[in-house]
Amino acid sequence: MLYDIAIIGGGPAGVSAAINAKILNKNFIWFSSHSVSRKVARAELIKNYAGLPNVTGAELGWTLNNHIESMGIERVEEVITGVYETGGKFTLLAGNKDYEAKTVILCLGVQAQKPVNGEEEFLGRGVSYCATCDGNLYKGKTIAVVCTDKNFEHEAEYLCSLAKKAYVMPFYKDYRISAENAEIILKAPVEFAGGLKVNEVVFKDGKIAVDGVFVLKSSISPATLVHGLKTEDGHICVNRRLETNIAGVFAAGDCTGRPYQYMKAAGEGNVAVHSVVEYLSAVKQ
Amino acid sequence: MLYDIAIIGGGPAGVSAAINAKILNKNFIWFSSHSVSRKVARAELIKNYAGLPNVTGAELGWTLNNHIESMGIERVEEVITGVYETGGKFTLLAGNKDYEAKTVILCLGVQAQKPVNGEEEFLGRGVSYCATCDGNLYKGKTIAVVCTDKNFEHEAEYLCSLAKKAYVMPFYKDYRISAENAEIILKAPVEFAGGLKVNEVVFKDGKIAVDGVFVLKSSISPATLVHGLKTEDGHICVNRRLETNIAGVFAAGDCTGRPYQYMKAAGEGNVAVHSVVEYLSAVKQ
Repeated sequence: MLYDIAIIGGGPAGVSAAINAKILNKNFIWFSSHSVSRKVARAELIKNYAGLPNVTGAELGWTLNNHIESMGIERVEEVITGVYETGGKFTLLAGNKDYEAKTVILCLGVQAQKPVNGEEEFLGRGVSYCATCDGNLYKGKTIAVVCTDKNFEHEAEYLCSLAKKAYVMPFYKDYRISAENAEIILKAPVEFAGGLKVNEVVFKDGKIAVDGVFVLKSSISPATLVHGLKTEDGHICVNRRLETNIAGVFAAGDCTGRPYQYMKAAGEGNVAVHSVVEYLSAVKQ
Repeated sequence: MLYDIAIIGGGPAGVSAAINAKILNKNFIWFSSHSVSRKVARAELIKNYAGLPNVTGAELGWTLNNHIESMGIERVEEVITGVYETGGKFTLLAGNKDYEAKTVILCLGVQAQKPVNGEEEFLGRGVSYCATCDGNLYKGKTIAVVCTDKNFEHEAEYLCSLAKKAYVMPFYKDYRISAENAEIILKAPVEFAGGLKVNEVVFKDGKIAVDGVFVLKSSISPATLVHGLKTEDGHICVNRRLETNIAGVFAAGDCTGRPYQYMKAAGEGNVAVHSVVEYLSAVKQ
């Protein structure tokens, strides 16, 4: 199926975009890795979301979810690892599946973690964001798995089940990796290094040899996610209509720059869909 | 008193700006001619204000007011009829009072009515927006009073009490002008005409001679309100930071252009205050 709109991201910008796409009767798909944006849920007290005085992050998340559910909108809980333009439409990769859409709205938030040195250079050359897509390439080999979130633990275990040896680096507490061939490393890598392909993970005080590296995270840097996307200081460049430099690709929320505010993000999700609708009707003519 | 910020307008953009100015501890004044934006209150059903599914306009207005009141924010119910830059600060005229502020956020909405031909040309030359400022100039004279809203009826009556003869044009139902020297005209003027000063009101089927014209309305066109403000098709030109072409003047909401959406307006009110705060700290240095 060719969707009118693919929305990527489940924070307030994504929620607002999904609500507006639904109201405007568009055929859309909404990728959101969590039922509530993790960052929203962690916020202590939000006083400046006009209309909801003094809500906790959890309450705001619950309220937004409630709005979504009341409209019968569904999330697809998959992580998009690549967006490619092909013949006037966009192909979105999610694990070993792909989806097609006429337009894309990026509601990616801001990355909590900067990419590791070498991560983006070696992407596709031994570094992968996608266990299901690339896991099979490392059957019987030695891999490193950076797992940024408990939600990705089952993917880390899947990778362990394929590899001969897996160095797993959990970036959170209460990790539970049960695979016998897994060696837990509680240090942050400073570099992924290699030649034509990645072949080692470098730490401050040493390094390990690997055949491949998996980085399991929900937020991939926008320029890595969408080839050719113009960014500045890590933020996606947009105009007042929230158009990016790529026709058909729009962005909303924290990923378009400061201030990092829920209300700003929700407002931009709303505007982005209106711009998309104009774009779709202009393209059709 | 010199305020940090003057916010003009009581719709969702103004509400959101006031909330953020309060949270960011700014010394601000908020001009809002009504306790709820009239347009919001009239909206039937709003489905896309993220977090408030299926609210009526009245409910949204009530909810926003509630937020404002819970924070102890007060409105000044005055209509600003002019904003002038003087020596690095702004003077705002409201009737026969004036206020001073370092920055201004225009949350003017969009005008329901276009100005009458000649209205802006003759402003200050026989056409006035302000009964209390200019009423005394027309003692014992013949005036026309365009009254766009029941809220301004007391100003129309005040003008009648000064003038010898007043032609009153109410633009709403259930008008009640009790002055004996008032003649009610239920036609819309097509032009205010004259030479050096206005001297007649023209209708499709005739005209009347007058010494002055009062137009009582809450939304004055942005370019008329703020001298030198750049607009395009009636919308205030702003960048992503919501800066206008005048340093220290910002704008948010419907007045900055389409889409005319509550969520977009509230988001922009939030962004505008953050931009103002950066501006104030840059100016101070």
